[in-house]
Amino acid sequence: MIDYREKCIALLHERGVDIKDIADCARFLQADYHVDLKMEELLDSVYSVLSKREVQHAIITAIELDKLAENKVMDDKELEDILLRDEGLYGVDEVIAYGICNLYGSIALTNFGFIDKKKYGIIAKLNEEGKNTGRCNTFLDDIVGAIAASAASRFAHRWVK
Amino acid sequence: MIDYREKCIALLHERGVDIKDIADCARFLQADYHVDLKMEELLDSVYSVLSKREVQHAIITAIELDKLAENKVMDDKELEDILLRDEGLYGVDEVIAYGICNLYGSIALTNFGFIDKKKYGIIAKLNEEGKNTGRCNTFLDDIVGAIAASAASRFAHRWVK
Amino acid sequence: MIDYREKCIALLHERGVDIKDIADCARFLQADYHVDLKMEELLDSVYSVLSKREVQHAIITAIELDKLAENKVMDDKELEDILLRDEGLYGVDEVIAYGICNLYGSIALTNFGFIDKKKYGIIAKLNEEGKNTGRCNTFLDDIVGAIAASAASRFAHRWVK
Amino acid sequence: MIDYREKCIALLHERGVDIKDIADCARFLQADYHVDLKMEELLDSVYSVLSKREVQHAIITAIELDKLAENKVMDDKELEDILLRDEGLYGVDEVIAYGICNLYGSIALTNFGFIDKKKYGIIAKLNEEGKNTGRCNTFLDDIVGAIAASAASRFAHRWVK
Repeated sequence: MIDYREKCIALLHERGVDIKDIADCARFLQADYHVDLKMEELLDSVYSVLSKREVQHAIITAIELDKLAENKVMDDKELEDILLRDEGLYGVDEVIAYGICNLYGSIALTNFGFIDKKKYGIIAKLNEEGKNTGRCNTFLDDIVGAIAASAASRFAHRWVK
Repeated sequence: MIDYREKCIALLHERGVDIKDIADCARFLQADYHVDLKMEELLDSVYSVLSKREVQHAIITAIELDKLAENKVMDDKELEDILLRDEGLYGVDEVIAYGICNLYGSIALTNFGFIDKKKYGIIAKLNEEGKNTGRCNTFLDDIVGAIAASAASRFAHRWVK
Repeated sequence: MIDYREKCIALLHERGVDIKDIADCARFLQADYHVDLKMEELLDSVYSVLSKREVQHAIITAIELDKLAENKVMDDKELEDILLRDEGLYGVDEVIAYGICNLYGSIALTNFGFIDKKKYGIIAKLNEEGKNTGRCNTFLDDIVGAIAASAASRFAHRWVK
Repeated sequence: MIDYREKCIALLHERGVDIKDIADCARFLQADYHVDLKMEELLDSVYSVLSKREVQHAIITAIELDKLAENKVMDDKELEDILLRDEGLYGVDEVIAYGICNLYGSIALTNFGFIDKKKYGIIAKLNEEGKNTGRCNTFLDDIVGAIAASAASRFAHRWVK
């Protein structure tokens, strides 16, 4: 039996993303609402998001698409080119990210929109890297934003329970 | 035959929102991407968004809910109280707003998340008013954000056609 | 402290919906996939769905809208008329229902689309009642479908864990 | 300048889907509501759906994923296996399909849920083919369902304008 959570954590790591980076994005999103944010609680929330099957499927599909474009093995060279350029009007990356956020309700969606525009922390780094090197992070930066947005939303809902 | 677009414009006006305020929010959202934004083109985009039946239904339902809470005629006093306080974890207002944004794709959703957190222009004003006076703008501020986010997304897609 | 789950169960009951009716809809949705469905497990899934804050907010808002239309106390008589006629192209009821389903992933959304068209069990009854009597069930039938669709999706995901 | 609509039509054809097959699915979805459905009008609606950039991006991404799995060139062999088996709990295919339907409102979403379960016409054929041969249609059948569901929704909204 495959442990898909472990697999996702390893895949994210391989692509330059540490779980702590995602927890830091979640902290950024919640900072205005809670004075006393403990990193362990945020990490906990990220791990919980990563335990959902639909999140895992989104992660492995997204990273596969980035890699296939990066390795230039796609059948459709126009699609490959769109992904390598991270074309602004291409939206399937955000659609898959929303598939994650939806599971955590409207706060997660709003969080995602905000961090996707603000490009905080690791998301800014991935975005830069995807534009200036041979790397393709077109899907990855949105996936990371969606996990952080979801972890922050989960955190907000639990805080007042 | 009712002209629902005119009806929505009148309703928004009655609640303190001018179409130009919405176009200004759309401009704010697109300002980073286009040097040469013409207000008429943005207004055009807002009018086009207001022409969709699903947008019109969202607007009239949202404003009705705000008014019913404000006039304290709701059957469910706990719901009325949630709406009057604009409780942070209540998300039906955002759900209805997303029903608008979805029609304009992933850029509209991201735009909405951003402006909902940033609370630019009329959205900030509505939010303030809803917190400090007897006014209930719980649904309205999200609806205005959604129309602006959608108009900006429509604009972005047309720009490169 | 209000127990919103109990409140929702009472509200649904007041409007003619028993939790068992919803579990029966969930059973209908899963019947093709599992030979050995136990009613208690489905009921358990329905109770779990009803424990989520976003689901509770959707339920109380939806039922309030039905009641306000039914009691003819809406400010906007055109909206009231749309709701009393259960107009086919009015979609805010489904938008709120999707706000529930989204929390349970893509299977919940597909389930909802199916049962919304098939109108099985209590959903058919609510739909009939809303068309032929003074009752307004425009929001309620979709909410019930969404809870059943979500409970069935939750069940499907847990079955294979 | 690439004509992405023509490209999508060619890609669909290459994978065994004719535009008429999709129009026939749209007809199936609307048959209960309109006595007098003209095939040309439905075809028109399908062509209009295929003109949207976000729809085009969804189609080319979905078909690419099917092909990459079918040709067994994926980096992630577990994902490849999930796609080749068309695993029931994998939902990214539906998430991308919903990215299309969302553009056409709540009726499109409900339509999709229904035809996805009913598996009418070409969708049934694609589903069979994907299960019994070396073909991978995991994404394609959902994409076709989403285009049909959207075309039918667009048709319904225009009918009463």
